[in-house]
Amino acid sequence: MKKILVLHGPNLNLLGTREPQIYGSTTLNDIDVMLKERAKAAGVELVSVQSNYEGKLIDEIQQAGKNGYEFILLNAAAFTHYSIAIRDAIAAVDVPVIELHISNVHKREEFRHHSVISPVVMGQIAGFGVDSYIAALDIALRKMGAAK
Amino acid sequence: MKKILVLHGPNLNLLGTREPQIYGSTTLNDIDVMLKERAKAAGVELVSVQSNYEGKLIDEIQQAGKNGYEFILLNAAAFTHYSIAIRDAIAAVDVPVIELHISNVHKREEFRHHSVISPVVMGQIAGFGVDSYIAALDIALRKMGAAK
Amino acid sequence: MKKILVLHGPNLNLLGTREPQIYGSTTLNDIDVMLKERAKAAGVELVSVQSNYEGKLIDEIQQAGKNGYEFILLNAAAFTHYSIAIRDAIAAVDVPVIELHISNVHKREEFRHHSVISPVVMGQIAGFGVDSYIAALDIALRKMGAAK
Amino acid sequence: MKKILVLHGPNLNLLGTREPQIYGSTTLNDIDVMLKERAKAAGVELVSVQSNYEGKLIDEIQQAGKNGYEFILLNAAAFTHYSIAIRDAIAAVDVPVIELHISNVHKREEFRHHSVISPVVMGQIAGFGVDSYIAALDIALRKMGAAK
Amino acid sequence: MKKILVLHGPNLNLLGTREPQIYGSTTLNDIDVMLKERAKAAGVELVSVQSNYEGKLIDEIQQAGKNGYEFILLNAAAFTHYSIAIRDAIAAVDVPVIELHISNVHKREEFRHHSVISPVVMGQIAGFGVDSYIAALDIALRKMGAAK
Amino acid sequence: MKKILVLHGPNLNLLGTREPQIYGSTTLNDIDVMLKERAKAAGVELVSVQSNYEGKLIDEIQQAGKNGYEFILLNAAAFTHYSIAIRDAIAAVDVPVIELHISNVHKREEFRHHSVISPVVMGQIAGFGVDSYIAALDIALRKMGAAK
Amino acid sequence: MKKILVLHGPNLNLLGTREPQIYGSTTLNDIDVMLKERAKAAGVELVSVQSNYEGKLIDEIQQAGKNGYEFILLNAAAFTHYSIAIRDAIAAVDVPVIELHISNVHKREEFRHHSVISPVVMGQIAGFGVDSYIAALDIALRKMGAAK
Amino acid sequence: MKKILVLHGPNLNLLGTREPQIYGSTTLNDIDVMLKERAKAAGVELVSVQSNYEGKLIDEIQQAGKNGYEFILLNAAAFTHYSIAIRDAIAAVDVPVIELHISNVHKREEFRHHSVISPVVMGQIAGFGVDSYIAALDIALRKMGAAK
Amino acid sequence: MKKILVLHGPNLNLLGTREPQIYGSTTLNDIDVMLKERAKAAGVELVSVQSNYEGKLIDEIQQAGKNGYEFILLNAAAFTHYSIAIRDAIAAVDVPVIELHISNVHKREEFRHHSVISPVVMGQIAGFGVDSYIAALDIALRKMGAAK
Amino acid sequence: MKKILVLHGPNLNLLGTREPQIYGSTTLNDIDVMLKERAKAAGVELVSVQSNYEGKLIDEIQQAGKNGYEFILLNAAAFTHYSIAIRDAIAAVDVPVIELHISNVHKREEFRHHSVISPVVMGQIAGFGVDSYIAALDIALRKMGAAK
Amino acid sequence: MKKILVLHGPNLNLLGTREPQIYGSTTLNDIDVMLKERAKAAGVELVSVQSNYEGKLIDEIQQAGKNGYEFILLNAAAFTHYSIAIRDAIAAVDVPVIELHISNVHKREEFRHHSVISPVVMGQIAGFGVDSYIAALDIALRKMGAAK
Amino acid sequence: MKKILVLHGPNLNLLGTREPQIYGSTTLNDIDVMLKERAKAAGVELVSVQSNYEGKLIDEIQQAGKNGYEFILLNAAAFTHYSIAIRDAIAAVDVPVIELHISNVHKREEFRHHSVISPVVMGQIAGFGVDSYIAALDIALRKMGAAK
Repeated sequence: MKKILVLHGPNLNLLGTREPQIYGSTTLNDIDVMLKERAKAAGVELVSVQSNYEGKLIDEIQQAGKNGYEFILLNAAAFTHYSIAIRDAIAAVDVPVIELHISNVHKREEFRHHSVISPVVMGQIAGFGVDSYIAALDIALRKMGAAK
Repeated sequence: MKKILVLHGPNLNLLGTREPQIYGSTTLNDIDVMLKERAKAAGVELVSVQSNYEGKLIDEIQQAGKNGYEFILLNAAAFTHYSIAIRDAIAAVDVPVIELHISNVHKREEFRHHSVISPVVMGQIAGFGVDSYIAALDIALRKMGAAK
Repeated sequence: MKKILVLHGPNLNLLGTREPQIYGSTTLNDIDVMLKERAKAAGVELVSVQSNYEGKLIDEIQQAGKNGYEFILLNAAAFTHYSIAIRDAIAAVDVPVIELHISNVHKREEFRHHSVISPVVMGQIAGFGVDSYIAALDIALRKMGAAK
Repeated sequence: MKKILVLHGPNLNLLGTREPQIYGSTTLNDIDVMLKERAKAAGVELVSVQSNYEGKLIDEIQQAGKNGYEFILLNAAAFTHYSIAIRDAIAAVDVPVIELHISNVHKREEFRHHSVISPVVMGQIAGFGVDSYIAALDIALRKMGAAK
Repeated sequence: MKKILVLHGPNLNLLGTREPQIYGSTTLNDIDVMLKERAKAAGVELVSVQSNYEGKLIDEIQQAGKNGYEFILLNAAAFTHYSIAIRDAIAAVDVPVIELHISNVHKREEFRHHSVISPVVMGQIAGFGVDSYIAALDIALRKMGAAK
Repeated sequence: MKKILVLHGPNLNLLGTREPQIYGSTTLNDIDVMLKERAKAAGVELVSVQSNYEGKLIDEIQQAGKNGYEFILLNAAAFTHYSIAIRDAIAAVDVPVIELHISNVHKREEFRHHSVISPVVMGQIAGFGVDSYIAALDIALRKMGAAK
Repeated sequence: MKKILVLHGPNLNLLGTREPQIYGSTTLNDIDVMLKERAKAAGVELVSVQSNYEGKLIDEIQQAGKNGYEFILLNAAAFTHYSIAIRDAIAAVDVPVIELHISNVHKREEFRHHSVISPVVMGQIAGFGVDSYIAALDIALRKMGAAK
Repeated sequence: MKKILVLHGPNLNLLGTREPQIYGSTTLNDIDVMLKERAKAAGVELVSVQSNYEGKLIDEIQQAGKNGYEFILLNAAAFTHYSIAIRDAIAAVDVPVIELHISNVHKREEFRHHSVISPVVMGQIAGFGVDSYIAALDIALRKMGAAK
Repeated sequence: MKKILVLHGPNLNLLGTREPQIYGSTTLNDIDVMLKERAKAAGVELVSVQSNYEGKLIDEIQQAGKNGYEFILLNAAAFTHYSIAIRDAIAAVDVPVIELHISNVHKREEFRHHSVISPVVMGQIAGFGVDSYIAALDIALRKMGAAK
Repeated sequence: MKKILVLHGPNLNLLGTREPQIYGSTTLNDIDVMLKERAKAAGVELVSVQSNYEGKLIDEIQQAGKNGYEFILLNAAAFTHYSIAIRDAIAAVDVPVIELHISNVHKREEFRHHSVISPVVMGQIAGFGVDSYIAALDIALRKMGAAK
Repeated sequence: MKKILVLHGPNLNLLGTREPQIYGSTTLNDIDVMLKERAKAAGVELVSVQSNYEGKLIDEIQQAGKNGYEFILLNAAAFTHYSIAIRDAIAAVDVPVIELHISNVHKREEFRHHSVISPVVMGQIAGFGVDSYIAALDIALRKMGAAK
Repeated sequence: MKKILVLHGPNLNLLGTREPQIYGSTTLNDIDVMLKERAKAAGVELVSVQSNYEGKLIDEIQQAGKNGYEFILLNAAAFTHYSIAIRDAIAAVDVPVIELHISNVHKREEFRHHSVISPVVMGQIAGFGVDSYIAALDIALRKMGAAK
């Protein structure tokens, strides 16, 4: 069975409680459940990991390939803007990565307009709320031949 | 019947012939046909316009509302980076806009990393080739209640 | 009879409907009617043109002289910030130009603080709503000797 | 009787003698006399103050409200470009302020293109010589209902 | 009896009336009275001076030493951001200076994030409303051995 | 009993040994003991945590609310200048945060003049050595109604 | 018969009347006649197009290949400095382009020193008046094997 | 008898006490006495003014001409770096100005490397201690024909 | 027996697999074995640690001194460019540090040209592949008197 | 007989061997021979000098006038980007200078996009290989009246 | 007999012929003769060297000390703005250096406002024509005790 | 016999006398003698050249290949920061170059942090005093197969 890894960066565990005017009231668990079902419907296993530790996310990215993941959906949250170490991890592995953001980062503070990981991922999706996750999953499924 | 407008910016009429290592060999017509069928399958009419004239694109955006379009999918191409007039047109109408790019603009020249329209659209999708269009369409359909 | 040309840039045709908290609810036609009457009262004919096309505005500026206009009142809207071609057109003709803006552009986004046409016009008026047009007209009339 | 305050910043007392190719040969007194008459004709009292001291101008702005002024016409001259203290004074009072300049500051040195007070005033007028003062006065009169 | 000098910069005389959503409704006199009592309780005389004139503040700083002040609490307000002359005055005297701000300047306009006096003062306190003054006073008292 | 959380960032465990000309010879434990006693005297429990791990500090900030802390005193040390993840954690919780620094960061290297967390905290205190901690504590106690 | 396309950008139709101290008194028609004769003498047909519309120039560049042009001589005028759309059109076609300017743009305003099209053309010629056109034509002829 | 005006800016009244490692121990009075004698020996009257008020220095510069001064020696101190008002005063009068500094400002903080008055004075002298004043005086005397 | 600590930053555990065109095919273990033997031959014990966690590297640097290490060879990888916390750890300990890089970072992306740790280390070595490690070791041995 | 001077800057003596993918395989001598013949055919003597020494090139430029040269063709190579001394030499002599480059410098590293000599030469030619020299020569001949 | 070295940088050999509106018509030889006489009158030998070669000027500065010069008067001309090698030579020798310029460099192009040698010289004199040399000489004589 | 070329840039001839707190007291001759012996022990001839002339260093680099050198050790000193001509010479030859610096340039002035030659050399070594030369030599020997 094919596998997709979803990585949630720092503070996303607070989703649903944190700044709801920006991120909505859906919790991270709600999202994970929905994504797993949607992936399962396409015959794909989806595993989700959240961490506030940059090092943990790097470990996950590094091991994704040998653990059989064919795609990574990455919401790096704040790390998007400065973690060159995560960027290097993405560049070092063969698993394609989709960068996603819940909010439209370009409507927010200036420093959120720049992503250090954008040049090494396949593409970006931002601004559609939970639909950002769904769109990323659908693209991954299509690229893996598991959806149309 | 609900309607979606797809706007293609300058030089996209050359798609399939222009820098295929970046944009692939699918023509713009191929894309339009595919999008129309996908929209139709969801019970939505999709109309597509391409222009090399900034003024023409502004006209289209301005009239989208009164013409009954509920969503605009916009690949503004080069205008993405300097057409404040298109930005103002988007901000002036009530129809939500999804910004999309075929290539991952963040892997290309520095000046392509900045979009003057990003702060006024709903969200962005970039880097997935033709799948950028499909993902944008699917999000629009979902937001309109025409897809899940 | 002396003549004044009023040029309205992109999206100003939406005036009265677009972001009323910034631009108010007066329509462009309301403004044109009022300006024409005010000019007429001073014995001056006033003609008004709006376009979303940069090229059209350049054409109008180029022909203003040979068409007998003695002054141009220009609200270049978004083009204010990047149309070097309009700047060059202004510099190339002998008809004096007054740059005007409805809103106080310095209270808005950073990119609206810079005007590429300011160095080649006679002067600027910004921030007074419809009164920006009236003030520009009155100055033109005074400079033409048609008002005190 | 309604009242308008005109504030002239540093070196404007030299008007008519200083760099006449930029500022013309009209003296500051000439301007004040003309403005007073024009205001008087509209049934408004106009008082004029000039100072080379930033602190003096701040004092005047602070007291304008309690002294019954309904509008301030401010030519801050050099202070335009660095006096954050004058900016704060304007923001702190309820009397609306019109920023004006005799010359087109955008044709001059780079540092004159930036105004620290623009974001807190109602609007700006620049480049029309003495007509900058007249236009500012006329706008104030209109906003006060004392002119059309 | 030991002495502390409190210096209030431009527009602080408007405290309690000016932008209350930022500065609160306590007047400058309220603050001075409270500080004097608090200092007095610790056996220290506190004197307060407010001015809209940069030169006046420089004079006060220069004379603080010979007038027997052991500490200066300085809310330079707008001068914080450009008065190199005040900076030089601080550097030129032996009396330690505490820089304080009522509001959190880092939440406000970009230009308020930079202080030209920070490198020559002992330290900074900002963002606590009237408590900024109290904290500064308490630190001064402790450093003078007049409080714990 | 009310509770305050004190968070010490990276390398602060070396306090008293590290660059004593900048930070003094008091150890972190000395500070914690003193703060706890001072808080206890006001009837408040104070808990202190130090970590060299950004992720650990984020965890602590996230859990502060549900753990009943009413205030966080945060010396983020080096993380002050780049940890957007800590910034986001602060913005995501309801517990007010006071940013503090032992040294006057504005006297040191250029990169230490900028704090990415300043815009989301209540206020800042810097430059007073151990007194920075005391002042922060006293403000927190006052805001909590536990001191005057 | 081989063919060369000459494209003149915005305001070049005013040549001979516009700022003669910069551009000289030769009209655009004079130039076109001379270029056509010079090309004809080398057995090459030369066609010339001028437009104030960016979109028109893009159309011309796109169709140059299928219309049998082997070289484009492009004086993009003001568009040189911001039209990324023209840049993309040049990059998208196989016809080599020579960028040319009548005046030495590096002696003029700072913004004229940067060309967005330079990186995608074969080379640049600037500053020689009408001779810039002649030199560009001669190079094209030589590269086409039609001159020595 | 010919006359020279010496203007000393803010904090120079502290000379001899302030940062002696930078400015030496000579007092401002010592300098004035020496300059007056040196000027007198050349048959020229020298008058000296010091002020911490920008406005006062502007007044002095404005009145220098009508008071019969043929040269101004100006040590603007901190105002050198931001007082555009002093710059404008210099540009507005016909009396030539020599800018001088006691210390080599280019060895000090970055912000001291830029002078807003340099472009409008005759020339600059910096870094020679009291000899900066003497050199400025000697040049003025030579230019006035009062020394060789 | 004298001791040297080798610290490898994030993603270096992938060495030999990651972007071999930049880093070659030697694994991190190969390097460690070789360095240990080379050190041993000089009578020095060499210990190697790799981590993807910034906090872990800080811990190691802090403890190096008390653990008897006389030198640290540090390949901070991506942390080189933003970890001010590692910089502070280096500055806080007495053990000298040699910064090294396998690739010539100045041939790569712009952001890799800047190192936040360079100003606090003894020196840098970059661009020689595995020889960067050997050169760093040899210098450490020489500085410790263990090699010539 | 009229004379033209050709100056080749540093490293151009390596032409034909150096980075042939950029500069081609023609040697500098090949170019000189061809240029001399072409000039001779127009009745003009052409002399060529190459040097790796900035001072030598300055000497040549300075002496060009008194040595009877009517034009200088200058390929300043690397000096183009920083030799203000060569710029000053060009500005100091009356002989017109044509700046030329073999490669399209705007396709190369960022620092090659800026020329310190461009503002003082007659014009620039770049990107046409050896044809850059020929075009420069032809322009010089035409300006001298020795060609059409 | 005491000795002073005068160094003239590139293109100063053209003095009197080059851009006379900036530099006047006095030749370099005129200046050297005058300076030698003035120095001689004070009992000091003055030697003058001009070169267009940066290396030659470095040699002269390096050897000044061992050749018995007590002062260097340096007009580095264009090298002022980029020759870090001359800066290093000045820093490496014990002979004090006075930087001088004939014109007021701050009235000229932006790049002439920055001097790379200013931080390592004793002081600067600029803008007084030949009097810049005289003032520099007089200061040197005074510092050497050879003049008052 | 294999050969290595050592190039010392401007002012390095002063080594041992110049700013010893930065560069130590070893003379350049001491270094050359030591390097020659170390190379000789590995069976390699080492030749050393110092010059204050940029042109001379370019000549040496250009001729290194044909003179049989297999490696260049380059301490370009001040030229490191601006000599694009030396950079081009390095890029134009096939002999690998090692860039080295005696001091840790990143601890010094800002302008010394940037090297224009770094992108075209094999690698860099900086900060180890004379050991920088030794490490560079050892790497060269190892790369040449003359050492382990």
